[in-house]
Amino acid sequence: MPATFNSVNPRTATALASFDEAGPADVAAAVEAAERAFHEPALRDRDARAALLRGAAGRLRAAGDEIVEVAGGETGLPEARLRSELERTAGQLEAFAAVLDAGDYVEAIIDTPDPDAEPIPRPDVRRMLVPIGPVAVFGASNFPLAFSTAGGDTASALAAGCPVVVKGHPSHPGTGELVAREVRAAAGDAGLPDGTFAHLLAAGVAVGEALVDAPAIAAVGFTGSTAGGRAIADRAARRPVPIPVYAEMGSINPIVVTDAALAARAQEIADGLVASVSNFGGQLCTKPGVVLVPSGEAGDAFVHAVAAQLDRVEPTVLLNERLRDALRAAVERLAEQPDVRRLGAAPAFGGEGYRHQPAAYEAPAAAAAPGSALLEEHFGPVVLLLRYGSRDELLAALARFEGQLTGSIHAQPDDDAELLGLVGDLLAARAGRVVYDGFPTGVAVTHGMHHGGPYPATSTPAHTSVGMTAIRRFLRPVAWQNAPAPVLPPELQDGNPLGIWRRVDGELTKDG
Amino acid sequence: MPATFNSVNPRTATALASFDEAGPADVAAAVEAAERAFHEPALRDRDARAALLRGAAGRLRAAGDEIVEVAGGETGLPEARLRSELERTAGQLEAFAAVLDAGDYVEAIIDTPDPDAEPIPRPDVRRMLVPIGPVAVFGASNFPLAFSTAGGDTASALAAGCPVVVKGHPSHPGTGELVAREVRAAAGDAGLPDGTFAHLLAAGVAVGEALVDAPAIAAVGFTGSTAGGRAIADRAARRPVPIPVYAEMGSINPIVVTDAALAARAQEIADGLVASVSNFGGQLCTKPGVVLVPSGEAGDAFVHAVAAQLDRVEPTVLLNERLRDALRAAVERLAEQPDVRRLGAAPAFGGEGYRHQPAAYEAPAAAAAPGSALLEEHFGPVVLLLRYGSRDELLAALARFEGQLTGSIHAQPDDDAELLGLVGDLLAARAGRVVYDGFPTGVAVTHGMHHGGPYPATSTPAHTSVGMTAIRRFLRPVAWQNAPAPVLPPELQDGNPLGIWRRVDGELTKDG
Repeated sequence: MPATFNSVNPRTATALASFDEAGPADVAAAVEAAERAFHEPALRDRDARAALLRGAAGRLRAAGDEIVEVAGGETGLPEARLRSELERTAGQLEAFAAVLDAGDYVEAIIDTPDPDAEPIPRPDVRRMLVPIGPVAVFGASNFPLAFSTAGGDTASALAAGCPVVVKGHPSHPGTGELVAREVRAAAGDAGLPDGTFAHLLAAGVAVGEALVDAPAIAAVGFTGSTAGGRAIADRAARRPVPIPVYAEMGSINPIVVTDAALAARAQEIADGLVASVSNFGGQLCTKPGVVLVPSGEAGDAFVHAVAAQLDRVEPTVLLNERLRDALRAAVERLAEQPDVRRLGAAPAFGGEGYRHQPAAYEAPAAAAAPGSALLEEHFGPVVLLLRYGSRDELLAALARFEGQLTGSIHAQPDDDAELLGLVGDLLAARAGRVVYDGFPTGVAVTHGMHHGGPYPATSTPAHTSVGMTAIRRFLRPVAWQNAPAPVLPPELQDGNPLGIWRRVDGELTKDG
Repeated sequence: MPATFNSVNPRTATALASFDEAGPADVAAAVEAAERAFHEPALRDRDARAALLRGAAGRLRAAGDEIVEVAGGETGLPEARLRSELERTAGQLEAFAAVLDAGDYVEAIIDTPDPDAEPIPRPDVRRMLVPIGPVAVFGASNFPLAFSTAGGDTASALAAGCPVVVKGHPSHPGTGELVAREVRAAAGDAGLPDGTFAHLLAAGVAVGEALVDAPAIAAVGFTGSTAGGRAIADRAARRPVPIPVYAEMGSINPIVVTDAALAARAQEIADGLVASVSNFGGQLCTKPGVVLVPSGEAGDAFVHAVAAQLDRVEPTVLLNERLRDALRAAVERLAEQPDVRRLGAAPAFGGEGYRHQPAAYEAPAAAAAPGSALLEEHFGPVVLLLRYGSRDELLAALARFEGQLTGSIHAQPDDDAELLGLVGDLLAARAGRVVYDGFPTGVAVTHGMHHGGPYPATSTPAHTSVGMTAIRRFLRPVAWQNAPAPVLPPELQDGNPLGIWRRVDGELTKDG
């Protein structure tokens, strides 16, 4: 009899349904089916993959009421957020289908031969990207739909032509099973083999470890904590055949506020910050964890306004007990630091479920050193307001930050242009996305969106987990040299039968 | 007084010049200067970088006589090869300068805002690739110019805007110093800071280890053995901040010959194979190590012709004593295998210098199992001819090969199309380049060339070390969200002042 675990309603800390733990045999069977599917011609048909993605989107929307209800029970997230997240998830699947339609994600390059080239003759070389192989995806707790079973990693891997084996997050197993049911059905509708998609549930780490170790797995997508992502990346690096791990991990998402910005719109910035810190329990990878605020009266008024507004936010339900406990411990470490003080006066939450009182802390910017509790990620509705007394203090503090998903600047056109340039450079040097006069939460799914950044924000700073270029993670190039026409994939054939953009002798063209 | 080591003439096994070993202080100084240079605006100027690359190319050509003479003494490679390699090296530097002129290597993407987008409003998002940081390059022994001090890794990293610290190969230190002198001078001519390029010499591994460990190093380029590349990749993965290692390592570059191809042009294939195996002592990453030849009379005649031709090749000088000893040991392991027999009758070389007699070995295809001595790389003028008796034996043998840089097929239009399709798929599934009716040596530097492949051919199958897309290894994306026009890099400005190809709302365009 397999081991079981329960889902839990975080609003009430009571058990919901029971689920069977996957075991080693389930991992082996899923990976073997994925490997078989990878080598079948069906999965190489981009129209079939587009049909799978569009079919999954349609099916998720059709099953929306059921999914949102179960997800609401398992995550405590409000219905409006889950409906929006479901639409985002469906839209993301469709956006990758459109990438397949356009077809130029294969980055086709054709170099025509030149027998007279020096120092050696140039052959006919045609190169495109092909799928890397079966992909393991680790779903995140905080986005039960958009970064989970059928989230961005799954969508981009399937679009690339890679079968996917998901290790569903144990914090929302029922949601995962419903979503997996729809994706499997969509694969069947599209004529794709069973091994195209699998979903494994387990509360322990053994299933995930077995998945990372499985020889047929060619890459891993992960969204979660720095400790979790690093453990998986380390494990994958130790394999006899190491594989890439695309882990999106921790970030404190610093925000810089200038004196001029405070003078012009302190209240607007405070309102936006409070929402960005506390919405959905602050459990977002792009939640602002640290804000650099000027010393002085305007700054004092700003930080007190932020703290007072956070005091008035109802203690938000967190995703699960583990996250709540980890947040509590991290906040205690923060509060113990000699230079840190708590702002505001709301009491800690003492009632039912896993909740935490939104809160602001304050410290001098000079106290924020690498490795200190001040620069730890607090995954919840908590923000640290770092006060800087001078331009040099601001720049020095920014230079001490590690890799980030985002960095933001609130400034005014009449701010010192040189200073803004330096701040922008410091943020771009350590973050994947630089946001002006806004907040980093609410990551739009667009062609150019970059949701990544230098370590420890991710394990692979050259890649993104959101946006259309996320497909690049699951592809590798192959070049064909002097290949006879019949063996060439359509993307590389002379006549350009798919009508895609290609680089021919260095020039981008759709010509045949 | 620093430790010293000597370069050695491999033709005579006699010492040449003496060189000082770099020490920890040299590593620290080079990395610190590289980090400073990385943050200076000069290196962000793509025209200055193009000038550096073109200047280095011109200077290398101008110093060609001196470089070729020293390289000939240190490597034993013939003058004509070194002159060709010098031209290739210069051409490669110029080709990356042309990539900078075209400018679209930054993969600029602009998504215009849409306040009405569902489920959340879409901001203005502009994304491009930026340099990843200072890069460490480990030069290869077998290409003292094209894969060494100013080789493809250095050229692509400098083009990307990354300062480079080269750990020069101790097998050709004098060559490396001459080349480094020219690159440094070209950097000065282009107005770039001293830290743009550094060259460290050492016979031991401590300098390389210190370089990989240095916190400011953001990526590593390496060409060499699987053991060496894996050790560096493992070390980089253990850093507090892991960094990518782009290691191009071992490959046995299988070739498939069909019955029909033998019937049509056995002599031509034998001539090409002998040259590809024995040119430059067979010390090429793409040297064919294993050839699948049909059983039967035509195959027998072919393998004996190959062996007889290899017997007549003069024992070629190898690059150094370590390579010669490693080759001898690997060939002894091969010859000891119960199913393997030596073809031909040339005696082992017993004279002056580090040489090895070109030779062919034969075994049944069924004997080639993963991990066996038959599928080890023999880095020298040695080839194993694997005989297959049936289509199934051929396909089964191919399926047992690990990741490769290349796979080649010699076939005829009247061969079984289905079989050719299966062979092509098996090769493309485990190799970075599939060559038809030719030989994998002589890697052309073109836009689409892919010199990479699944592990153990490389540590990162998604990347190439030859061809224009090699620049992608040293770049990472940054997205700017709602940025005011003045802070945007020119590549992302509304008017497209550089006139580069960009993806705007999903469509490639040069429009402003």
